[in-house]
Amino acid sequence: MKGKRTTLETSTCAIARSLEVIGDWWSLLIIRDALAGTRRFGEFQKSLGLAKNILSNRLLKLVACGVMTTVPASDGSAYKEYVLTERGERLYLVIAALWQWGEEFCFPPGQLSYDLVDSLKQEKLSPIELKAQDGRTLGPRDFSPRVLLR
Amino acid sequence: MKGKRTTLETSTCAIARSLEVIGDWWSLLIIRDALAGTRRFGEFQKSLGLAKNILSNRLLKLVACGVMTTVPASDGSAYKEYVLTERGERLYLVIAALWQWGEEFCFPPGQLSYDLVDSLKQEKLSPIELKAQDGRTLGPRDFSPRVLLR
Repeated sequence: MKGKRTTLETSTCAIARSLEVIGDWWSLLIIRDALAGTRRFGEFQKSLGLAKNILSNRLLKLVACGVMTTVPASDGSAYKEYVLTERGERLYLVIAALWQWGEEFCFPPGQLSYDLVDSLKQEKLSPIELKAQDGRTLGPRDFSPRVLLR
Repeated sequence: MKGKRTTLETSTCAIARSLEVIGDWWSLLIIRDALAGTRRFGEFQKSLGLAKNILSNRLLKLVACGVMTTVPASDGSAYKEYVLTERGERLYLVIAALWQWGEEFCFPPGQLSYDLVDSLKQEKLSPIELKAQDGRTLGPRDFSPRVLLR
């Protein structure tokens, strides 16, 4: 694990650096729960069914990476709460893209129990699209990395 | 590891099921390379700097999950090549969302070496947006899961 981290932190690839921060499986599920409003250690644990030491480790990592931060409990109790920073919140597009892919490719017909809806109108979200500057919708082979000259 | 897999394969959450298939860190980097045209074991290994046994294991898993498939070598040689299935190709939105997040939040100013461009015009891609059915752009707190009634 340590070898992998050292490598990717300095990778020139934005995907590799992202995965260094949130590539851990549980980290993304913690972020999913945090986006849905979960804030307390015990609530994360109940939702994820995760051992306390592993959850604690992941939350610490997310805080260290600037994806989450701790705040005093909203009810004035002694608990601290974990909330997403702006950096963390902005992962919602990754979360939504994963959801839509999973919804389409990881459930047999009729097995889906939830879908994602727009909170205002309670309508199913539009499928995410990748667009060029001029508005063209791009497919999986329509984009590529470009070296930035300095 | 085995415990986690058993849990998530049958999860009702589409994100959890997606991560079961592609949540592994290396798997997403393999998919990134495959989208960019990499097809051969040796090419993946050179790009990822990954031990042969680990790469072999991840490729086998991606094939078993229906994200990749093997085909005879395009040059008629004895090598087999690994290509994305439709299920795998459609992860390009997850890859692009990760790229854009990493580009924005994982590089100090001026450190970015690559960006993602539209292959036709070589222009930087538009930022991905999440949209409601009526076209409204949604933020991180504007959507939620809905239980599907049966």
